[in-house]
This record gives sequence, structure tokens and C-alpha cells, in this order.
Amino acid sequence: MSEKTAEALTNRTICQIGVVVRDVERAAANWADCLGLPTPEWTLTDPLEVANTVYQGEPTEARAKLAFFAFDNISLELIEPVGGPSTWQEFLDTHGQGVHHIAFRVADMDDEVALLKAKGMPPAQRGDYTGGCYSYTDSTEKLGVILELLANR
Amino acid sequence: MSEKTAEALTNRTICQIGVVVRDVERAAANWADCLGLPTPEWTLTDPLEVANTVYQGEPTEARAKLAFFAFDNISLELIEPVGGPSTWQEFLDTHGQGVHHIAFRVADMDDEVALLKAKGMPPAQRGDYTGGCYSYTDSTEKLGVILELLANR
Repeated sequence: MSEKTAEALTNRTICQIGVVVRDVERAAANWADCLGLPTPEWTLTDPLEVANTVYQGEPTEARAKLAFFAFDNISLELIEPVGGPSTWQEFLDTHGQGVHHIAFRVADMDDEVALLKAKGMPPAQRGDYTGGCYSYTDSTEKLGVILELLANR
Repeated sequence: MSEKTAEALTNRTICQIGVVVRDVERAAANWADCLGLPTPEWTLTDPLEVANTVYQGEPTEARAKLAFFAFDNISLELIEPVGGPSTWQEFLDTHGQGVHHIAFRVADMDDEVALLKAKGMPPAQRGDYTGGCYSYTDSTEKLGVILELLANR
């Protein structure tokens, strides 16, 4: 795909599909069984003082248990929300288990967040992790799915 | 990824993400705007006598308006359900807009459907299209998302 305009996302490779689940250990075991692979260990996202998690404009103690499968062309992230209000918990409470987001890597987080906001898709949650940061976009009404932007630091 | 067992899916490349939307024209226009691309035309799936659509064990007149975006590594399918009961309409009625499925290509549809059924994930809907057939699997409880299997004829 080419002919990108200056007013569009700079990356068109979906790098990750994020699935919110009620029990990450159980979901990871079920996926592993389907794929004929070992069950991955889950990890806990960083606490507020490290992740600087902001949800709907307010800091939140929310964290998540994460487990990953590396498919040939994309990674699958299983997400069990814990500990406080978050886009993950909101999704689980509203929809039950399901695909929470699809993710793109971006070079300039501020530019891309501003671009989406100008198109009527404001940020819903952001945070930091070792080596980078993320921003979820409130795009379900316009695109049918939450977008996650990922940027390295 | 390797070391597949005989009791697991034979393909680990997610080829498609399917998003159920209320209005495929509007969603396609919004995606095109985000991506800086022309809005794709939508197409209507075949009628029952061609598609042989079966939903929850019964033939259905359900069809869908589809629009596609080809990302670098995966295709995005926008789906507006029309015309009768279907897994797409059920998803829209239950969850609203969202990611309905992720899809894998398989060599032997019957074998893979049987494999998933044996693991507690029965088929939810199947049908034919020019050059192939599909089967959606009732896997939301175990995996957090519906799997679609696609096979060429």
C-alpha cells in the first residue's frame, strides 16, 4: 500500500491483536492447546509509578496480566485486567471476552495521537513500559475497533 | 513457530481480522481517511442457494456487505450483516461493533473443524464463496475470539 497522505497513519502493518480475557492462565492454556505449543508464562504490567497509566484523563492503579503468542506475522496479546479502572476492564464489563484492540507501531506518538484526535478519535488510555509507550484510541464508533499506537523510546 | 503436534491447528498465520460494523460504507470511509487511501467498494455475499450458508445448524438467508483493506501483513474485513440470522448479526446485537473473528487458512476444512469441535469449540456458521469455503468456530469462551477457518476448493 502506498500513496499515504500527510493526514493519515504512518504505518500500515498491524503488529498485534489484543484480546481481553477473564482468566489469562486459562485462555493461554486453551490457545497453547489449539496451537500445539507450550503455555506461555504471564507477566504483570508495571505499577502506576512506573507505567504512569492514565485512563480517561485520570491516573489509575489498573494493571494487567499479559501473555503473548508470536504468530508468523503478528503477535497475539492476552490481557486479564486487574487492580483498577482501565479500558481493559471497561471492555470486559461491557462486552465480555473479545478482541480489545489492534496495534500499530508509530514513530511519533504525539503526532499520531493528535491526528486521530483531530479525526474524532480521542485517546482513551496511555502508559509506559520498558522501552516504549502506548496509547489506546477511542475509535470503536468510527472504525469498529480500538486502535493501539506503540512507540519505542 | 514450529513443533506443532498432530492435535493442533496446521497454520499459524492469521490472514484476516474481521470487524462487524453497522454501516460498511461509513466504516470503510472512516478507515480510508485514517489510512490515506481511497474508500473501497463493498460487495454483497452470495445468496443462500450459492453460499449454502448454515448458522447454528440451520440454513439461513443471511448475507453480508463486505469491504476489505489489504494491510502489509494481513487483511481487514469490514462486515455489515443483512438479511437474516447469522453469527455476524448475533455479534452486532450482543456486542455492538467490534472484532468478530480472526482467520486462518487451512488445507483440510473437515479435519480442522473436527479438531476444534473435539476441543470444545463447535462450528457456529459455515458457507461457500467463489473459490473456497469458511467455517466460524464458537471459541469465544475458550480463546476470547471466534476463529474463522478458510479453505480453498
